[in-house]
Amino acid sequence: MKEQRNGLLLVVSGPAGVGKGTLDKALMERNHKIKMSVSATTRAPRPGEIEGVHYFFKTEEEFKTMVERGEFLEYMHVFGSNYYGTPRSFVEQQLANGYDVILEIDVNGAMNVKRSFPDAVLIFITAPSMSEIKSRLIGRGTETMEQVEKRFATAFEEIKMIPHYDYVIVNDVVDVAVHHMEAILEAERCRTARSAFVSEAIEEIGR
Amino acid sequence: MKEQRNGLLLVVSGPAGVGKGTLDKALMERNHKIKMSVSATTRAPRPGEIEGVHYFFKTEEEFKTMVERGEFLEYMHVFGSNYYGTPRSFVEQQLANGYDVILEIDVNGAMNVKRSFPDAVLIFITAPSMSEIKSRLIGRGTETMEQVEKRFATAFEEIKMIPHYDYVIVNDVVDVAVHHMEAILEAERCRTARSAFVSEAIEEIGR
Repeated sequence: MKEQRNGLLLVVSGPAGVGKGTLDKALMERNHKIKMSVSATTRAPRPGEIEGVHYFFKTEEEFKTMVERGEFLEYMHVFGSNYYGTPRSFVEQQLANGYDVILEIDVNGAMNVKRSFPDAVLIFITAPSMSEIKSRLIGRGTETMEQVEKRFATAFEEIKMIPHYDYVIVNDVVDVAVHHMEAILEAERCRTARSAFVSEAIEEIGR
Repeated sequence: MKEQRNGLLLVVSGPAGVGKGTLDKALMERNHKIKMSVSATTRAPRPGEIEGVHYFFKTEEEFKTMVERGEFLEYMHVFGSNYYGTPRSFVEQQLANGYDVILEIDVNGAMNVKRSFPDAVLIFITAPSMSEIKSRLIGRGTETMEQVEKRFATAFEEIKMIPHYDYVIVNDVVDVAVHHMEAILEAERCRTARSAFVSEAIEEIGR
């Protein structure tokens, strides 16, 4: 048997306000072999932000070189704004050390990751209904109605991408939703394609 | 939301002696919404066997009529011997009532079920290694060495079919293996294709 199995890359998406961060945090508290992916960015560090913990801070030139070298699982650049990306090396290093890695990312980023890392497991987090998504956005009270409408329109577009995800978790009760995430991790480790038994048995049969 | 969700059909295969029956039983003890599928057969009832519990007992004519009507998920007939089959109606009725159904069946039967019921979840149970499979067969002490060799050859053929299964569970410690089965059930219910949320949200978006 392999001495240590590789971790899984979990890609987590979902509309604003559905509690993705809460679930990620709860999952990590209950499972100590899970880490969040750390993004690279060209924006300046804010007070208290630590290199390699909150972000990998890069100059635009460094970032572009990484892009050219194919060092990102995905990256994005809003014109006139900063670059953000997911360094492949950090993720692969954690996976090789047996850590599962959570990558919380929007639907476009998730589709790019799926292309560059087909073994990723895509999970879409949602509230129980569209109307619940809207009331959670309003309930946050941090945005104007115009911003809420805009976010809700975005949520609509995101929901349409669900068929590209492997799993959908309805975050109604946090403990239940976290249990679903744990079950998905455990089940995915039993997937035939990932089974160490299969490759070893077929090798043994060949002898 | 749907008032009651449908159950899942779990197809369980694996070499003789790996503990399929033990796992099924343990799973059912811990989860009361799981039932075993009941087969139909043309063989005569043995003392104590109850119609609809151990088997559905059929005459050969009845069985053949059911075959013609497409009433089996799969069936087999060894020349000069009895017919055995899995009645679709029993399985579908349990699933509609919200029960998960376990169908313990050989690899050929499993492939047939997958064709006639694509939503089935296929799980292959195995011992930790090929040599362990052999020692478990010998350890049962109920067979001659010739029978053991024959069963081991069959196990080889079965192992080769693993890539057609969705999951592989290595039954080393029973509690761990049962937990894997439970995780698979829970994860499969979160599968995008089965999510009630998805169809409802897309309908809501359409309005």
